[in-house]
Amino acid sequence: MKNHPQWHPLEDRYFDPDPAERRVAMELYKSVADLPIISPHGHVDPRLLADENASFGTPADLLIIPDHYVFRMLYSQGIPLENLGIPRKDGGPVEKDHRKIWQTFADHFYLFRGTPTGVWLADELHSVFGIEEKLTGKTAPSIYDQIEAKLKLPPFRPRALFKRFNIEVMCTTDAATDPLTHHRAIRKSGWDGNVRPTFRPDAVTNLLTPDWRDNINALSKASGICVDSYPTLIKALEDRRVFFKSMGATATDHAAETAHTAELSSSEAENIFQHALSGKTNADDAKRFIAHMIMEFARMSIEDGLVMQLHVGSIRDHNDLIYKRFGANMGADIPSQSEFTKNLWPLLNKYGNDSRLTLILFNLDESTYSRELAPLAGHYPAVRLGPPWWFYDSINGMKRYLDRVMETAGLHNTAGFNDDTRAYPSIPARHDLWRRVSANWIAGLVVRGIVDMEDAREMAMDMAYRLVKKAYKL
Amino acid sequence: MKNHPQWHPLEDRYFDPDPAERRVAMELYKSVADLPIISPHGHVDPRLLADENASFGTPADLLIIPDHYVFRMLYSQGIPLENLGIPRKDGGPVEKDHRKIWQTFADHFYLFRGTPTGVWLADELHSVFGIEEKLTGKTAPSIYDQIEAKLKLPPFRPRALFKRFNIEVMCTTDAATDPLTHHRAIRKSGWDGNVRPTFRPDAVTNLLTPDWRDNINALSKASGICVDSYPTLIKALEDRRVFFKSMGATATDHAAETAHTAELSSSEAENIFQHALSGKTNADDAKRFIAHMIMEFARMSIEDGLVMQLHVGSIRDHNDLIYKRFGANMGADIPSQSEFTKNLWPLLNKYGNDSRLTLILFNLDESTYSRELAPLAGHYPAVRLGPPWWFYDSINGMKRYLDRVMETAGLHNTAGFNDDTRAYPSIPARHDLWRRVSANWIAGLVVRGIVDMEDAREMAMDMAYRLVKKAYKL
Amino acid sequence: MKNHPQWHPLEDRYFDPDPAERRVAMELYKSVADLPIISPHGHVDPRLLADENASFGTPADLLIIPDHYVFRMLYSQGIPLENLGIPRKDGGPVEKDHRKIWQTFADHFYLFRGTPTGVWLADELHSVFGIEEKLTGKTAPSIYDQIEAKLKLPPFRPRALFKRFNIEVMCTTDAATDPLTHHRAIRKSGWDGNVRPTFRPDAVTNLLTPDWRDNINALSKASGICVDSYPTLIKALEDRRVFFKSMGATATDHAAETAHTAELSSSEAENIFQHALSGKTNADDAKRFIAHMIMEFARMSIEDGLVMQLHVGSIRDHNDLIYKRFGANMGADIPSQSEFTKNLWPLLNKYGNDSRLTLILFNLDESTYSRELAPLAGHYPAVRLGPPWWFYDSINGMKRYLDRVMETAGLHNTAGFNDDTRAYPSIPARHDLWRRVSANWIAGLVVRGIVDMEDAREMAMDMAYRLVKKAYKL
Repeated sequence: MKNHPQWHPLEDRYFDPDPAERRVAMELYKSVADLPIISPHGHVDPRLLADENASFGTPADLLIIPDHYVFRMLYSQGIPLENLGIPRKDGGPVEKDHRKIWQTFADHFYLFRGTPTGVWLADELHSVFGIEEKLTGKTAPSIYDQIEAKLKLPPFRPRALFKRFNIEVMCTTDAATDPLTHHRAIRKSGWDGNVRPTFRPDAVTNLLTPDWRDNINALSKASGICVDSYPTLIKALEDRRVFFKSMGATATDHAAETAHTAELSSSEAENIFQHALSGKTNADDAKRFIAHMIMEFARMSIEDGLVMQLHVGSIRDHNDLIYKRFGANMGADIPSQSEFTKNLWPLLNKYGNDSRLTLILFNLDESTYSRELAPLAGHYPAVRLGPPWWFYDSINGMKRYLDRVMETAGLHNTAGFNDDTRAYPSIPARHDLWRRVSANWIAGLVVRGIVDMEDAREMAMDMAYRLVKKAYKL
Repeated sequence: MKNHPQWHPLEDRYFDPDPAERRVAMELYKSVADLPIISPHGHVDPRLLADENASFGTPADLLIIPDHYVFRMLYSQGIPLENLGIPRKDGGPVEKDHRKIWQTFADHFYLFRGTPTGVWLADELHSVFGIEEKLTGKTAPSIYDQIEAKLKLPPFRPRALFKRFNIEVMCTTDAATDPLTHHRAIRKSGWDGNVRPTFRPDAVTNLLTPDWRDNINALSKASGICVDSYPTLIKALEDRRVFFKSMGATATDHAAETAHTAELSSSEAENIFQHALSGKTNADDAKRFIAHMIMEFARMSIEDGLVMQLHVGSIRDHNDLIYKRFGANMGADIPSQSEFTKNLWPLLNKYGNDSRLTLILFNLDESTYSRELAPLAGHYPAVRLGPPWWFYDSINGMKRYLDRVMETAGLHNTAGFNDDTRAYPSIPARHDLWRRVSANWIAGLVVRGIVDMEDAREMAMDMAYRLVKKAYKL
Repeated sequence: MKNHPQWHPLEDRYFDPDPAERRVAMELYKSVADLPIISPHGHVDPRLLADENASFGTPADLLIIPDHYVFRMLYSQGIPLENLGIPRKDGGPVEKDHRKIWQTFADHFYLFRGTPTGVWLADELHSVFGIEEKLTGKTAPSIYDQIEAKLKLPPFRPRALFKRFNIEVMCTTDAATDPLTHHRAIRKSGWDGNVRPTFRPDAVTNLLTPDWRDNINALSKASGICVDSYPTLIKALEDRRVFFKSMGATATDHAAETAHTAELSSSEAENIFQHALSGKTNADDAKRFIAHMIMEFARMSIEDGLVMQLHVGSIRDHNDLIYKRFGANMGADIPSQSEFTKNLWPLLNKYGNDSRLTLILFNLDESTYSRELAPLAGHYPAVRLGPPWWFYDSINGMKRYLDRVMETAGLHNTAGFNDDTRAYPSIPARHDLWRRVSANWIAGLVVRGIVDMEDAREMAMDMAYRLVKKAYKL
């Protein structure tokens, strides 16, 4: 135990320590460890896969600058984001020396002890880049050199890693107005990687989005429909869904601060939309409009078969200074209380009994897992629960999810795993962690006599591979 | 481990895997495994015990059609309730072939992997019916035959199982207006099973109950008091409590959406009641009236000694389509956030210091366990906590309850276990599960040096038998 | 296992049972077990340390009468507080025979099975007083004799125990108006114990405090500034902070029902304050004023460097009868739902990015741990999380805290441990429990391959000693 090398991840990592349970966990894990990765929801930039020669840049470009999981922790300890090379909106000076950024990160890598980011990175450095040393301030330069050298080699280009990672299908997240240029390029290129877009219309349906008017114009342009009324908005959105489907999309994604749903009359919807067009939206209008649009999107999903994902519970851009200086998605989105039982009532009463709808729910308030989400998913044919999201995509987060959800919802009302990441090289580490934690959880059921090994093997396969394919129609 | 037979439940099932802890758990479990069952709260139909020749019907009549835990899970996966033989309110066609219903259930029994229903059923089939095979689509016909044959034998009649299950006392749940005909018949029959009614007045005190007016008429008839005013309502309720006590009742049961309590003046109460009699109730009136009546029932309990149970936190009949087509209690009741600290303030300030009152609280919002319920029970002499309810009557549900409640409330401010079931043959499986999980929890305290074996044995006995008898005055 | 003696606490108590994990836990625990105690927040009366001959009185004076953790549990089972010698505000009769009080306590010591009070007392009786018997009704008289005899000996005087307990620094909690007479006496006495005051201004900033007007007068007197306006209030508080700092204070402490913050204009603040001075405060004014003052105190902390502690979430004096008869802090403070993400928004947007501020947050609503507190602490440079508070200063409370907080906030955004106690002889037992539970938690990470032993040793040292010194600037 004296010299357990974290930087060389253990074969039986993340398993509970009881030897009998660990044996079962290992058997189950091995049965699914090499299955292909299904990644139905994430934020990888499709540009990386559109160009066969695309490169990740420097180690800091790859692992620090785009990853708000990483830099928000350093910021919390007083390290300015400028020191980490995060670009300022005003173009003000930020650190340009990527070796220096890497050194700052490595000097503070102790901050990630016991965090998901810490274990993903340890796994990534070893498994993807073959690093044999532990990342510390002292080893930082040598590790930087090794990664930098690897990143220049063809096997470390995005498409090569896609194959090496054994990704069967990857879905990106794309604005409703996106022409899907990179997706087109991927298709045209003849490369056989299965990359699909996901339809995300928030920027046009959330009336408070900065530049909302520009987004509406972009929607008009993209759809060829002049969006100047509520009916033309609906028509343009439906049109874009047809296009996304034609490009391989099987799902949509929607974010909202709450799960509030409520149907407006056509004239109410039109009034609110016209107010917005004339620049007079208020918070209440925006809230009512999104509540209505969530229901509209459920209707469209029933009609066109696209799976509907709903992510709620985050107060975006909580830190005004960071938002003004660096923009959105800078690690300052903070969860808040959520409610589903009452908020989803209108939607579920109208569409919840319809098996043509698959509504996958994600949230950041774990107190709703056993109280609201599991009972809803365990009753309504349309409802499935997404995996633990964001801060909860972690060993303990997954354990709490499995503990609180599965007894009531049952495994088959959940949607397997997704990595939801823009950190491309962390994808295998994230899926591996899920497969290990799942195997460990099922092993806990086996050693307690709750399920037998025959069922356990089926459950491991469901959690690693089958449930997600089925839920997302992939 | 290869062929661990779930359908033959393990001797040490549900225990944590550490061998030392498991040895202690087994010793504690064995010390209470054969104690009689105290079932102070449940929904068994007393008719089953009133007629010495009553039969359970077919396997589907027994295990599927009346059990919303079972059919809501099948429904969540798109199986129409009609296919499971659930009677429609409009008399529309439903499946009548009980073998076919059983087959549908068995084909989908994998949905119950890792759920309480799954382990109860596995235990029940083996321990009550002697089934040696695992339930699957393939074994379904043979298992149906075996159960069907058993159900025709005298040892499988309700009264015989009552004795075989070693039930010392069972309390049913009965409307305030119920003439308790079956309870009378049980008493008259000379059979020595101890079956007692519980006084449940919700249908007359919740002004929004469908057919509320009919219930008031029924109360007038049952009490012989013309209920045409608030004072006569109170008098009639008090009269019925006297009658229930004379029939053996030791407790009342009250359900409310929230734990809100607030006293009305007599004239306010009278005004609301007269409005209701004239058919003009609104939601706010109903809410204020129930908040007041909960306090009135606490007063009555202090006077007549009946233990008061309060169940809160469920949004009943969330799925309108299911309610309209099949009625209430069809697996579509969904929990919602609860609050006790502020809601119970009026009641506890008036009656909470009075040891003559025993107020047993049940709820479906686990975030209140450590935050509100345990601190309240650990202070007010009148408050006791009921066991984990409904979705939480499960291995993990019990672990969370014990983890979050016991350090603050202490064991002696809890009320032991109750099964709360209408699924009669599952009663031993449910109590056995509680006794195992309790023993395992206490063993966890022993191996951590928190309690010694002398205390542990007392705690096991308290949890299995003594606390519930004391709390319910049985 | 048959005769495991709880009253002789086990060497490996509180550790999880897996032998491999236990070995690691023991190694880590041993590396920190003998470190000095840092007690940055508590309620020990400084008078005890001001007088070198101060005595604790009888065993009941020491262990029962001042400890609301103890007597609230006895009260919950119907034992009148009068029987436990708790003084009545009206001077009415209470039990004076301390042997009888001790006997009542011992007769009911079974109520504390599995509670933190139970394990602290078992440890205390053994480790501080050398008791070799288990406390029961039968052993009560003999144990009383032994403690009583010890308490008369010089090694059991407060200052001697301070040294024996190896307390490096202890901070008391003191009203803003307190002349710190005992702290002066300690300094003058030449005794080298490091005892520091903490600035707690609640009694002057909570306008609803009974005797608020008297507290303002006391503030005028203490500061020499006539507090007759909002500006003079601010000036007087700043003046007192200077004085507290001069007496060694490094921190302030603030309690509020909620974490609500919102800045008032100077004229609004003045209006509310003048209303209060003229005796016309209402609940809304008081709420707005405290929300504003919390922000003012953050500003002062940035200016003078005092660490700011904020405790929220308790409904004080929930039981009116107990409050009227016995006063405040009688075990009848009950937690309620808390919210931080929205409530702290104004304060964090104004001051949260300023590393000169250290804002340590405490709360009683565990659902906020992973949802709000850990994400806030994992982003804002000014925020640190206090250890589990009050009811959660327990084995399970700590486990839940570590499980839910650490993955997102990281260890270095937490503030180590504090005992928050007025039960002086329980201090070593409380810190020992934290060190054991921490070591056990870290061992869980080691055996799961999440951290290596090198990191684990650093984490153990951080949790036992370094983080608290750094957070409180001690």
